Amino acid sequence: MRALILSADGFEDSELLCPMYRLREEGFQVDIAAPEWGEIKGKRGYTVTANLSFDDVQSSGYKILVIPGGKAPEAIRGIPRVQDIVKDFFKVQRPVAAICHGPQVLISAGVIQGRKATGYKAIAGEMRAAGVEYVDAEVVVDGNLITSRQPSDIPAFNREIVTALNT
Amino acid sequence: MRALILSADGFEDSELLCPMYRLREEGFQVDIAAPEWGEIKGKRGYTVTANLSFDDVQSSGYKILVIPGGKAPEAIRGIPRVQDIVKDFFKVQRPVAAICHGPQVLISAGVIQGRKATGYKAIAGEMRAAGVEYVDAEVVVDGNLITSRQPSDIPAFNREIVTALNT
Repeated sequence: MRALILSADGFEDSELLCPMYRLREEGFQVDIAAPEWGEIKGKRGYTVTANLSFDDVQSSGYKILVIPGGKAPEAIRGIPRVQDIVKDFFKVQRPVAAICHGPQVLISAGVIQGRKATGYKAIAGEMRAAGVEYVDAEVVVDGNLITSRQPSDIPAFNREIVTALNT
Repeated sequence: MRALILSADGFEDSELLCPMYRLREEGFQVDIAAPEWGEIKGKRGYTVTANLSFDDVQSSGYKILVIPGGKAPEAIRGIPRVQDIVKDFFKVQRPVAAICHGPQVLISAGVIQGRKATGYKAIAGEMRAAGVEYVDAEVVVDGNLITSRQPSDIPAFNREIVTALNT
């Protein structure tokens, strides 16, 4: 069983680490993809190894896509290959979980118009402008889409990730 | 259902945050006790609110005690009230989970002589000198005692915490 995280330098450390550890706890191999493979560094200084570049990703191999927050989503949202990966997951309605600034990537991929979702309060306006029904809740599940607002929502975010993987 | 974390300034951020979020995911109220109540700060700069001082703790109210690593264990291991709280949990064989430098607190409380356990490699010598059968593994469970070595062991650490709470 494999899970995919899309990120880059400047990720919100706990929003990458805690879901990554939670997925490993469930027995998943967690692949991390970034602009280039190699070490990426979070806002707080934690480092993780991106074992794939975006170009290396084969979307079909993964049961879930996770997009942590921080500054990384803004940095990668405009990359066509990132948008294509996101679209691959939505095409087959496979779970996509985004937290904090993560939904910015979904907006740029054009996949969440008309969907119910949440995200960091600073991007609520941007989400609504993109046609999202923004809900101020710790987690919002709408079909294959799981979204949360901030690090303190991680318990609910992880709970819904695991639920989605077991259904 | 309530869980107790004992810590202080200088905690290893992910070793406090990820188990705290994991316990909340299971529906636990997680109390954090420190030398004084108020904000404590991790090595990487994350802050959490200690809602209790060590003196406020009523050990009997908790299903599990968690001791994260970092510099906090060294700072609190000599405090008699901390040692008494730890002894309370061992007296009734209630789960105690310590990671990284966390087992230093258990050594000072005099509760892990003759037990099988692990901890951060830098304290392996100190653990052996205290009569611990040190095992170099991602997690070691010996009765009520759950121990791990480092942040990358968090998946196994959390898995055994949840298992202990469900048995």
